[in-house]
Amino acid sequence: MTINDNQLTKEFSPINDSVTINEGERIDDLMRNGYGIIQHPGRFCFGMDAVLLSSFSKVKKGEKTIDLGTGTGIIPILLEAKTKGNHFVGIDIQEASVEMARRSVELNNLTHKIDIVHADIKEAVTVFGKASFDVVTSNPPYMNSGHGITNPNEPKAIARHELLCSLADVVSQAAGLLRENGRFYMVHRPTRLAEIFGCMYEHRLEPKRMCLVYPYVNREPNMVLIEAIKGAGKELRVDKPLIVYNENGTYTDELLKMY
Amino acid sequence: MTINDNQLTKEFSPINDSVTINEGERIDDLMRNGYGIIQHPGRFCFGMDAVLLSSFSKVKKGEKTIDLGTGTGIIPILLEAKTKGNHFVGIDIQEASVEMARRSVELNNLTHKIDIVHADIKEAVTVFGKASFDVVTSNPPYMNSGHGITNPNEPKAIARHELLCSLADVVSQAAGLLRENGRFYMVHRPTRLAEIFGCMYEHRLEPKRMCLVYPYVNREPNMVLIEAIKGAGKELRVDKPLIVYNENGTYTDELLKMY
Repeated sequence: MTINDNQLTKEFSPINDSVTINEGERIDDLMRNGYGIIQHPGRFCFGMDAVLLSSFSKVKKGEKTIDLGTGTGIIPILLEAKTKGNHFVGIDIQEASVEMARRSVELNNLTHKIDIVHADIKEAVTVFGKASFDVVTSNPPYMNSGHGITNPNEPKAIARHELLCSLADVVSQAAGLLRENGRFYMVHRPTRLAEIFGCMYEHRLEPKRMCLVYPYVNREPNMVLIEAIKGAGKELRVDKPLIVYNENGTYTDELLKMY
Repeated sequence: MTINDNQLTKEFSPINDSVTINEGERIDDLMRNGYGIIQHPGRFCFGMDAVLLSSFSKVKKGEKTIDLGTGTGIIPILLEAKTKGNHFVGIDIQEASVEMARRSVELNNLTHKIDIVHADIKEAVTVFGKASFDVVTSNPPYMNSGHGITNPNEPKAIARHELLCSLADVVSQAAGLLRENGRFYMVHRPTRLAEIFGCMYEHRLEPKRMCLVYPYVNREPNMVLIEAIKGAGKELRVDKPLIVYNENGTYTDELLKMY
């Protein structure tokens, strides 16, 4: 489900060409501001969900954002490209991801605007302090069971399953990190929606906007994008359906607009 | 938004033609089993929401159902036509609605299968007893403010605004009326979704299925259909989008299938 899978362009010239690219890694063109991103297909590559989340998230001029479980660093890098936010932090518990994401930040000469921090989501409020951000984003692990996992230390398993942090951890830390009226943006599976709203409710994060992503117009949705505002009043705006593919398998205009 | 608005057929012959039709009332053809329904346009006519709810609701052979705030009695009558349920109860707080709905039940010779009871939703568990139903349905008032209401005693205001019962009342009574693993079906506004899930959570009603109804494929949804199961495990299935109109304003095939 990644649009970028086949976009490895050997001709891509990074803004900063002095960054080390290790064996097994590749640079993908983000097609924004000349930015690239380093990925390791054997570990975890970002998907459409991260890109849609970066378009769905609103960051205003001068705001400070943090991305919980940043992986490749894709969300802070795209948010820096798409918004007028002032400073962007991405945290991840996997040291190898942090090291690689830092190189992606260097690759785009963004070290003055983006910090990649090696930290556990569960410790985020302790590390950064309460009410220290205007915006929190997260594309957390979706799966709540360890079912079928052969190696729980494997990077992909950690990125996909709630092995090292749960949905409740992500939501409670997001609530703690946000200032009053700060905004939390998350992408997740529609199957978890009731649980997500329940967790948000417990932490005074009021769901204010939601967009369901349907692969085709006649299929069940496989992603949901949610904006919640800390301490806001009740009333959810549900967006028009976001349909990914036309009947013939090409991307819809609407999807391409978000890319 | 009612499909039946223009279906007043002077030629419609009710199954039981000895029922009184008062001045200002009309009989609409339900186009199922020869059933008709009495409505009074000056009071409140059922809409697409009630019809969609009756299609969305699953009632199994032999099951007992209750509809909270039944109005014209449309939901019990349609459920009797569409399912193999054993007995159907509809309650309403408005005496004139109850009297008219009873005549609709007689009109279709259904007095042995459908009871219309004059009762307050808030008293439903007291009246019928705990865990006394397999299925609860409701198309409750959608609006939580009394904003702009000139006459709060007006039948339409009572049907549309939470003047006499709140969302929390409907959900808590539904939970009390249902047996363990019983099913609650509700249609509501998407703007209230987070609140609905919150109320359900408080009463052990787990949202298990949801369908958003979008008037057009490029518009925000204006209805949501929800199935919640008492005491079930977490996992919500979100249906493919239900689109009401084609671009040219005709009903979609999918919508017609539900009618």
